[in-house]
Amino acid sequence: MVTQDQDLGTVALRWQGDSLALLDQRLLPAEEVWLTYQDADGVAGAIHDMVVRGAPAIGISAAYGVVLAAQRLTAGDDGWRVKLERALDRLAASRPTAVNLFWALERMNAVLATADTLGGACGALEAEAVLIHQEDIAANLTMGRLALTIMPEQPFAVLTHCNTGALATGGYGTALGVIRSLWRAGRLTRVYADETRPWLQGSRLTAWELAQDGIPVTLNADSAAAHILRQGEVQWVVVGADRITANGDVANKIGTYGLAVLARHHGVKFMVVAPSSTVDMSLASGNLIPIEERDGTEVRQVQGRPVAPADVAVFNPVFDVTPAALIDAIVTEKGVILNPGLEAMAACFN
Amino acid sequence: MVTQDQDLGTVALRWQGDSLALLDQRLLPAEEVWLTYQDADGVAGAIHDMVVRGAPAIGISAAYGVVLAAQRLTAGDDGWRVKLERALDRLAASRPTAVNLFWALERMNAVLATADTLGGACGALEAEAVLIHQEDIAANLTMGRLALTIMPEQPFAVLTHCNTGALATGGYGTALGVIRSLWRAGRLTRVYADETRPWLQGSRLTAWELAQDGIPVTLNADSAAAHILRQGEVQWVVVGADRITANGDVANKIGTYGLAVLARHHGVKFMVVAPSSTVDMSLASGNLIPIEERDGTEVRQVQGRPVAPADVAVFNPVFDVTPAALIDAIVTEKGVILNPGLEAMAACFN
Repeated sequence: MVTQDQDLGTVALRWQGDSLALLDQRLLPAEEVWLTYQDADGVAGAIHDMVVRGAPAIGISAAYGVVLAAQRLTAGDDGWRVKLERALDRLAASRPTAVNLFWALERMNAVLATADTLGGACGALEAEAVLIHQEDIAANLTMGRLALTIMPEQPFAVLTHCNTGALATGGYGTALGVIRSLWRAGRLTRVYADETRPWLQGSRLTAWELAQDGIPVTLNADSAAAHILRQGEVQWVVVGADRITANGDVANKIGTYGLAVLARHHGVKFMVVAPSSTVDMSLASGNLIPIEERDGTEVRQVQGRPVAPADVAVFNPVFDVTPAALIDAIVTEKGVILNPGLEAMAACFN
Repeated sequence: MVTQDQDLGTVALRWQGDSLALLDQRLLPAEEVWLTYQDADGVAGAIHDMVVRGAPAIGISAAYGVVLAAQRLTAGDDGWRVKLERALDRLAASRPTAVNLFWALERMNAVLATADTLGGACGALEAEAVLIHQEDIAANLTMGRLALTIMPEQPFAVLTHCNTGALATGGYGTALGVIRSLWRAGRLTRVYADETRPWLQGSRLTAWELAQDGIPVTLNADSAAAHILRQGEVQWVVVGADRITANGDVANKIGTYGLAVLARHHGVKFMVVAPSSTVDMSLASGNLIPIEERDGTEVRQVQGRPVAPADVAVFNPVFDVTPAALIDAIVTEKGVILNPGLEAMAACFN
């Protein structure tokens, strides 16, 4: 059974007090299977293998992973602090691009640093992880409200890429949260969802999630986006982010950058929606963001079926960087940044 | 067994005197199955179902389909001319966008109009179809030579979309013919091949065809093209065409238009390679080209496996239109048109 909350969409992670349940997103929409994790290494593996994905959901899962690491230690263990720090390191190594992972682990590490005993650490870490989770949901609801202040009153269509919904976050979603808010306000005609190769987050997750909530969605091949934008029905492209740098550059799912170029070419507005945990003010620009490359098998095969010569070379970067100059608005729970750049980012996040 | 000609690449259609053999491109690269057609309706079905695809290959196949229609009639049949005209109509209805189909059928119809007897028609139609086939190969070789006159001498990388090789033509290929010519001239470092959803012509056909010829190819998701163009290695995007109008607008595989916008944004040159049979001077602009939409199943499923909710709405246009203003060069066997537009097109094709 999938957890369905009318207000938050279909959530994909559930803290169970002594274990973390994750909806296996590799199998959606064909199968709805929940997997249960009881230690940090299991959670790190689930993040690496994309059982759970989406920058905010990765951060929340990693935070719960730290709680599980603490819970698995025994009270008499003298080396508990060092062991927990190592668990933090293993969780941090699970994926490189989304900064929410490192942000959440830093928060957990700060809590750990103030704990005197393992017992105290357990309680404080769990409270912090639950707080990270709840704050993420609250941020999404806030962003949905803020984004609408700069969008048209008359109903219009949007185009989105990848999945940024309840499945990618603590609930409700970032870009998909804005889309939910538009729909509830009667200001949305339709969502065009890029299928989002190679992992098909758009067809497997976004189309499924929107259909569950009765929001009109039309699925399209990624390469049809330019043709769609040219037709004039879409007024905003709305996407999430995996990392936003101090100058307003945005790393997000591969294909986002091309969409931003195409949106600008067609006079379509381009919005990035992400909680402030996605902002990395320590990096001056997007050129410094590590871009994960995943195995070529993701392109050579679809759902385990070969679609290309088995030994063909593949370039499979799973993120790209959109320069701030192509972005009309970055929406975080701290506010809306129009025409983002160094100064506007500093004013909001320093 | 696939017909392999060192000079022309792996060809996919073979005229056998009284039947047409087609390599089933729906099954490549997993299986190499030849299907044999002995009448026009079979060929029309093969075109519709994409056993054979690629604008020039469709035109050649349709021409042979007319020959088969004539061969199947009996000498004493009074209504042979009307029956042949109906076969032409059924072949013409097989697909709407590529004009090579209608061009080839017009040539066949003109031959039919001058025939006095069925026996005479049979011979004349077969000679015309073989000529269309041979001329297509010759045009491809000529285009390969002409294109190189405007490309850099120093080796560089190209990016291509869909399949425009021996499989899509009578042999050698259009855009892929240019790529073959670059490789033979020692002026090519690498081909980036868009996988080309939804039908995956890039991963299934182009990667396979280039690998057979030992030309270095790297496969990428369509949405990675912007990221690749930004990196500076690719100097030309080279694609084929399904129809070119009097003002130089080009209909080609969905995604081509977006690539042209992205190429211009990055200062990468954009070349369209197609025989003059792809030029439709009867249409003033690309807005008038009928754009085929195929069944949503092509996006909802990959190789028969569901990848999206079964009932999700899909927008599946399989071609788009690139305005002439985004094209640096159109190469046909009649010459190279730089910065194509109304006047340059008229000078070449009127």
